[in-house]
Amino acid sequence: MADKQSTKPPAGTRDFLPDDIRRRQHVIGVVRDVYEKYGFEPLETPAFENIETLLGKYGEEGNKLIFKILRRGEHEKSGEADLALRYDLTVPLARVVAQYQNELPKFFKRYQIQPVWRADRPAKGRFREFFQCDIDALGSMSPVVEAELLSAVAEVLGRLGFHDFEIRLNHRRALTALLECAGVPESLHADALVAIDKLDKVGVEGVREDLQSRGVDAAATMACLDFFTGLTTEDPGRYGALERLRTFVKSHHAGPAAVDALVEIVALSDRTAAHGRIRVDPSLARGLSYYTGAIMEVAVPDLAGSLGGGGRYDNLVGMFLGRDVPACGFSLGLERIIVVMTERNMFPAAVSGGPVDIMVTIWNDASRADALTLAAALRAGGLRVDVYAEADKLGKQFKYASGRQVPFVAIVGDDERERGEVAVKDLRSGDQTSVPRADAARFVARAVRRET
Amino acid sequence: MADKQSTKPPAGTRDFLPDDIRRRQHVIGVVRDVYEKYGFEPLETPAFENIETLLGKYGEEGNKLIFKILRRGEHEKSGEADLALRYDLTVPLARVVAQYQNELPKFFKRYQIQPVWRADRPAKGRFREFFQCDIDALGSMSPVVEAELLSAVAEVLGRLGFHDFEIRLNHRRALTALLECAGVPESLHADALVAIDKLDKVGVEGVREDLQSRGVDAAATMACLDFFTGLTTEDPGRYGALERLRTFVKSHHAGPAAVDALVEIVALSDRTAAHGRIRVDPSLARGLSYYTGAIMEVAVPDLAGSLGGGGRYDNLVGMFLGRDVPACGFSLGLERIIVVMTERNMFPAAVSGGPVDIMVTIWNDASRADALTLAAALRAGGLRVDVYAEADKLGKQFKYASGRQVPFVAIVGDDERERGEVAVKDLRSGDQTSVPRADAARFVARAVRRET
Repeated sequence: MADKQSTKPPAGTRDFLPDDIRRRQHVIGVVRDVYEKYGFEPLETPAFENIETLLGKYGEEGNKLIFKILRRGEHEKSGEADLALRYDLTVPLARVVAQYQNELPKFFKRYQIQPVWRADRPAKGRFREFFQCDIDALGSMSPVVEAELLSAVAEVLGRLGFHDFEIRLNHRRALTALLECAGVPESLHADALVAIDKLDKVGVEGVREDLQSRGVDAAATMACLDFFTGLTTEDPGRYGALERLRTFVKSHHAGPAAVDALVEIVALSDRTAAHGRIRVDPSLARGLSYYTGAIMEVAVPDLAGSLGGGGRYDNLVGMFLGRDVPACGFSLGLERIIVVMTERNMFPAAVSGGPVDIMVTIWNDASRADALTLAAALRAGGLRVDVYAEADKLGKQFKYASGRQVPFVAIVGDDERERGEVAVKDLRSGDQTSVPRADAARFVARAVRRET
Repeated sequence: MADKQSTKPPAGTRDFLPDDIRRRQHVIGVVRDVYEKYGFEPLETPAFENIETLLGKYGEEGNKLIFKILRRGEHEKSGEADLALRYDLTVPLARVVAQYQNELPKFFKRYQIQPVWRADRPAKGRFREFFQCDIDALGSMSPVVEAELLSAVAEVLGRLGFHDFEIRLNHRRALTALLECAGVPESLHADALVAIDKLDKVGVEGVREDLQSRGVDAAATMACLDFFTGLTTEDPGRYGALERLRTFVKSHHAGPAAVDALVEIVALSDRTAAHGRIRVDPSLARGLSYYTGAIMEVAVPDLAGSLGGGGRYDNLVGMFLGRDVPACGFSLGLERIIVVMTERNMFPAAVSGGPVDIMVTIWNDASRADALTLAAALRAGGLRVDVYAEADKLGKQFKYASGRQVPFVAIVGDDERERGEVAVKDLRSGDQTSVPRADAARFVARAVRRET
């Protein structure tokens, strides 16, 4: 049954071989561990939703990118779709909040790490199947929520080994106030935000051109840029922008309150794992129009783009309930974090090393049972142990183990068996030591600890 | 934007709320841990495959149960499907083996724990989205493979707390020999296997009727049943069936070799974690026609059906390579294991208990920063800590924590703050103790250990 068809994974998707999965499991394990330490609870939803749950939730572009599943059975030929693959983790959260409103706690803090699917044109670093890693805290408008969220994210990144990240913080209503005070008409706010968001990439001149090409008049452009130019030339430190912002928006009806909200979040965060990580950045806009309060983004110096971002969005999660539900969330860029950690060689040896600590060789067919006895003893001693599948030349067995980065092999030849011993060979140094069977597990455990 | 549409998950799928996920993560964690201790390596493949990869691999019935995804873009209206959701973990494994043949080790031992999707009619306990949990060892015909597989499975079940399971073991070629020696014509073997497989459910009389209704003549039926009747009335012990089987099939060209293979697996397994768990059962048939050697199934006494099963299937994994690849696999019934463990109350307290160890209350708005400082200290001491989101009546905060099964709350009122203390309240006993701030983490950690 030879078959000439392609055995590649579908376009835009990936097979994760063992080394990939070990890296992913390491990152996901840290994320889970930290989020649970902060009282976030795990949630998982089905890979597909009824199609009407998703359609219309992501705009016209989004609708086109949703993978749709054919209705089964006799209807299959009609081409009708009744299910669709999960497109993000927020709409399923909104559905869950409506469905289980009487079972969920008043302040529902959940994390969710699952793949989503988008029929985007595949490109380098852009996939049709990728993992999202979201935390959201629902039910409260208190700034404690933002502070806890930022602390959890900072602790995740620290535990993963990032020591140079910065959390940019802004407030959506502060941005609105800033634009209004600068004289940008409300109809151009969305356009202006897109332009301003690029300040750290294209600089003041780039933003000026962009604002004007989007129809913002010269006076308003000048007023905006004066504000930002002052910020960038003065280097206001982490929080200095707050005072400049307060002065600029003091006449706006919502401006001072937005600045106060930022001050509060910054003050609370100073008591947490996010201490020293936050920089108030009035130019941070983030594309999504659904944010209503604080917005945040995490970046490392050598990486264009972010490791994650989020903010407060009080009008979205209640979409199926028909009422607002306060919400603040953060999405870690799992795929990106893994890429950066791989490039920077940040994975611990246990993750990037071999699959097992030792491989038990098989001397001959008659000694297979003895090999399994030894393997059982080594495993009982806490070791990860592979057994070569069949009797074969020892050299071939060593080479196989080396090729899989297994550091040690165990050999029980006729002599060793007679003496009740096992020979442990270090495949990197070539050293071989005979030890009594009863001591083998302890001996190897010590040797493994020394090597890693 | 109120919306009257259903917020239930699609038919045949489930939302997994936090308690569900904690149980699933516990089981999956043990499975992973043990499988990795045996040198099995993790693999994950995309949720969907190119449709031609799946079509024709699961028979006509299977084809109908495959979820098909519409081709995107302008073709969407044609109803053409070009992708399909993963239906099992074996065909993706076969594709991976072909695609990465030069990168994978000669003996590729992988585990894979991922959902699969089948458009079955939903029913109690039958889902359209469910997890499979497979291990497969490829590349060797040695009985060491079967022994290692059975040992790993036995260790998983033991670690999960199953102490009453039995592994039924048989050999596909022994079954063939048995049927031929009994005089069942080859054309009726498949039918006869289905009938015999039900022996432990319907008894000898039930099997007799079934065999005859399927066209097996009286003499062959009698010969078969004589063999099994002897087994069931004599209670041959774990391995006694081997001798009866050897006698019965001794004239068959492949019979004695199949019995020898079973003897070898049993002898090797006696040295492993599967020791005392295996019962040779010549009536075990398992439905799938692709098995070529040993077949096995795990059962517990109070459960109809099995907790998992598998066997050797040397002709399947090479389907995309155009050559045979020796393979032996086992699939744990993850969903079933979770149901049984829930019914039997087998989950440890840490899994079925509350989401965090302690909740920090908020005395008033001015003390929010102090509450976060305390939370950071408690987390640094290794505790899982929630912070109530806002200042509120203490009674309401206590009630909220109780409702979420949180065992302790921390209170820092004005008095405590003045004295540099924190009050720790045990919500179950009502006891409240004031301790110095610096000792709080240690105090709570000890108290939590006492409670669980």
